[in-house]
Amino acid sequence: MALRARVLYDFSSENPGEISVRENELVTLHSDAVVEGWLEGTNSGGLTGLVPAAYVEILGDNGTSGGDPAPIAQRNSFQASQGSDDDWDDEWDDASTVADEPALVPDGDGDGRSAYSAHTSPRAHQAKGSATVGKNLNRFSTFVKSGGEAFVLGEASGQVKDGDKIYIVMGDFGPEWQGNPYPFGCSIDDPTKQTKFKGMKSYMSYKLTPSHTQSQVHRRYKHFDWLYARLVQKFPVISVPHLPEKQATGRFEEDFISKRRKGLIWWMNHMTSHPVLARCDVFQHFLTCSSTDEKAWKQGKRKAEKDDMVGANFFLTISTPTIPLDLQDVESKVDVFKAFTKKMDENLLQVNVTVNEFARKQITGFKKEYQKVGQSFRLLSQAFELDQQSYSVPLNQAIAFTGEAYEAIGEYFAEQPRQDIDPITDLLAIYQGHLTNFPDIIHVQKGALTKVKESQHGTPDRGVSERCNIISCATLAEIQHFHRTRVRDFKAQMQHYLRQQISFFQRITSKLEEALHMYDKA
Amino acid sequence: MALRARVLYDFSSENPGEISVRENELVTLHSDAVVEGWLEGTNSGGLTGLVPAAYVEILGDNGTSGGDPAPIAQRNSFQASQGSDDDWDDEWDDASTVADEPALVPDGDGDGRSAYSAHTSPRAHQAKGSATVGKNLNRFSTFVKSGGEAFVLGEASGQVKDGDKIYIVMGDFGPEWQGNPYPFGCSIDDPTKQTKFKGMKSYMSYKLTPSHTQSQVHRRYKHFDWLYARLVQKFPVISVPHLPEKQATGRFEEDFISKRRKGLIWWMNHMTSHPVLARCDVFQHFLTCSSTDEKAWKQGKRKAEKDDMVGANFFLTISTPTIPLDLQDVESKVDVFKAFTKKMDENLLQVNVTVNEFARKQITGFKKEYQKVGQSFRLLSQAFELDQQSYSVPLNQAIAFTGEAYEAIGEYFAEQPRQDIDPITDLLAIYQGHLTNFPDIIHVQKGALTKVKESQHGTPDRGVSERCNIISCATLAEIQHFHRTRVRDFKAQMQHYLRQQISFFQRITSKLEEALHMYDKA
Repeated sequence: MALRARVLYDFSSENPGEISVRENELVTLHSDAVVEGWLEGTNSGGLTGLVPAAYVEILGDNGTSGGDPAPIAQRNSFQASQGSDDDWDDEWDDASTVADEPALVPDGDGDGRSAYSAHTSPRAHQAKGSATVGKNLNRFSTFVKSGGEAFVLGEASGQVKDGDKIYIVMGDFGPEWQGNPYPFGCSIDDPTKQTKFKGMKSYMSYKLTPSHTQSQVHRRYKHFDWLYARLVQKFPVISVPHLPEKQATGRFEEDFISKRRKGLIWWMNHMTSHPVLARCDVFQHFLTCSSTDEKAWKQGKRKAEKDDMVGANFFLTISTPTIPLDLQDVESKVDVFKAFTKKMDENLLQVNVTVNEFARKQITGFKKEYQKVGQSFRLLSQAFELDQQSYSVPLNQAIAFTGEAYEAIGEYFAEQPRQDIDPITDLLAIYQGHLTNFPDIIHVQKGALTKVKESQHGTPDRGVSERCNIISCATLAEIQHFHRTRVRDFKAQMQHYLRQQISFFQRITSKLEEALHMYDKA
Repeated sequence: MALRARVLYDFSSENPGEISVRENELVTLHSDAVVEGWLEGTNSGGLTGLVPAAYVEILGDNGTSGGDPAPIAQRNSFQASQGSDDDWDDEWDDASTVADEPALVPDGDGDGRSAYSAHTSPRAHQAKGSATVGKNLNRFSTFVKSGGEAFVLGEASGQVKDGDKIYIVMGDFGPEWQGNPYPFGCSIDDPTKQTKFKGMKSYMSYKLTPSHTQSQVHRRYKHFDWLYARLVQKFPVISVPHLPEKQATGRFEEDFISKRRKGLIWWMNHMTSHPVLARCDVFQHFLTCSSTDEKAWKQGKRKAEKDDMVGANFFLTISTPTIPLDLQDVESKVDVFKAFTKKMDENLLQVNVTVNEFARKQITGFKKEYQKVGQSFRLLSQAFELDQQSYSVPLNQAIAFTGEAYEAIGEYFAEQPRQDIDPITDLLAIYQGHLTNFPDIIHVQKGALTKVKESQHGTPDRGVSERCNIISCATLAEIQHFHRTRVRDFKAQMQHYLRQQISFFQRITSKLEEALHMYDKA
């Protein structure tokens, strides 16, 4: 049966190859593969061409949209779409696994929860608490979609194996995820360009070396992307670090490759240092499964995609401290954190704008100014060379050298942002990602709290409070983990920045000292 | 008899107090005192007010212009006008000395040479050599006005006392002024504001301390100005350093006072290090005459103004090496120097523009960029302070300190040009002054050479060649002195600049190291 999509917003074609479509128009798709953000199809007027994937909603076989009502446009913000990957028409598009297009067909769990549903954009509809401890009327709220509501209402059920248990302990500053007793890291080497189909297709392959296995595995960006989608689905109140930005064009360019690798290093660092994420099966599969054993990879892949302990069921795996939290205290702590994230988000944005502008100024203006000074010193020495006085030769040479020194300093300025500002922007990017996660996390906790309050108006339900306590413990543990990581990362990065700046100014000083010595002979 | 002036160029009044005048109109002047560049008078329409002194030519008592046909506009380029001084209506305007307005009345020498006539602007008319060894037709040429022509034609005569003799010796690089056996320097202290007429008038008084007398004398800018005029009049082929710029308004402001003092220090340095200028009577009178002995001062002043050994006669005082120069060689050397000065002039202009722009960028743009970075770090620490986690306090403080450090670095950038670029521009100013002098010096030498060539066509005149040799020796000695001083000054100033820059970048580095140490506790 032909695959169809309903158009969500008007789109006027702007370039050859594109077709115009109108809201609510039905488009027949040639394939559900999203290529660099585009789908190929035929519009109601019979024209064939490209339409932006974000502007349409692919319809299921029965002609209705899939289990997940969020249009692709919204899902794209997760950076977890399947189609627009490094290359799209390879073995990865395995029609036998539902995970390839998890959002486009009902996933068969029967609980109305779909893959990708854990996170929506921060602008997702707010759940409005009803007067009874019933289901929210707004079925699209994060609280509902994350599985938080189902869990609080006691609807989650599943067999929790001992190995799946996640412990929250009471630390000095409140609930904390129990630390990983076997901490590890994972290095990511510069990716290499690989080809297949006799060189027809090429892709970048990253070499990962986890410290706990010391066995190299090769992964492509789309594997990271797949993993990310699994994690977001599984962990409703954990802030899964965002992957570095995608880029459709220029993806084999050195700058982009280097930038993406640095982003992946940050991502990996946040993964391995998170006590829950670091130890989860799907991540371990990703880190340890041999790149050459395709069968083992596919097995692990299917297992992850069929994992029952996701969303609402994830909360079943959590083991909290014996003494329940004071929910009023939790509410106040979460409110403080909410205000904090809001301010941090605003200020990171400002810092980002400022340091990027600073980098731009150094690369353009500062460089130009120092080079102009250098050139003017050169001009001076050129004029002096016309004097034909032998005793002024050393001076002329010294001035010419000074000119070169200033030109070199101009280059130093232009090169410096790569050393110090780029790492700062990488840091900001990973934290800006976290900060877009937290509104949803807070929303789930607040949804749970609302249920407790509702339950106190009607028939008291101790189970609701207990389950809200689990969500609250997990939320506070995640907040605590965020603060710890933030202090660690910002300390390290500010130190790195300052060390780089110091060595930069020292390099300038050395260059000038070199120039100064030239005058000893003059 | 009423003092009158002929208008040289149309002038339309633009401000209250000014009157409009037309070319060739006669204006009745109320006084010949030029006040901040203006003369007060009544135009032919009967309107009274101010006209720009540069736009009129004051007429002598007989209704014709004075001995010097150059209008004030041209003379103003010498920075040696009398009227627009620190204050203009004091005892200095002594009508009994002709020097007060030397250019405005015939100076009575009868040779057509006037005070101020030694130098005209580089745009002065070029002398056109005639076919016979006669006088130039163009009586306004520098060669004529400097007295160079009169001297070459043997018309100069005077009694040269032994003490007035100036020796040129043959050095390694050609003729040189014989060095001063008793070299000295002269310090200039910050001027103090003096008042007179019961505080109605105020002026700045500089304390000068010559190293050879160690006796302090006090001089005002107008004394420097008077001295400058004497020197320019006396020495036709010596480049008298230009005085620092005048400024009518804000002349008691700290910045201007400091800038003028620095300019005067450069000027004094060039005076004392010139073997001829340093030893001449009028300069010694200026340096050594007691500031309180008014009688001695006026005596010396009159003596200088009545000095016979000026212009054409100056050449009589010169004693050259026994072997005359090869005039062809002289011509080629002078041509090389001419090309050199042209290039140096062009390039100094470029350097001046560039370093001033660099200073401006540091004071505005660079400062702003570093301060914005500082502010964004502060914002970061402000956001972090909302987290209420005690363990992050040291980090927040360190980031706040880093913010302050960058704000301080912004200030460093803004303050730096005063330390390193301002001295460079002072250096450029004194050399730009010299470079405007040299075209006239070269012109005098070339005029003399032309007379030699003319004399070879007609009746050979050994006297012409001998006198041309004197002018050539003096010119080459002056060129050699210029190069020596230039190498010395540019070397010293470039070293100063680089040392200042090094200490500037070291100060930045120290500040950043201070900030870095803050993170040790974080």
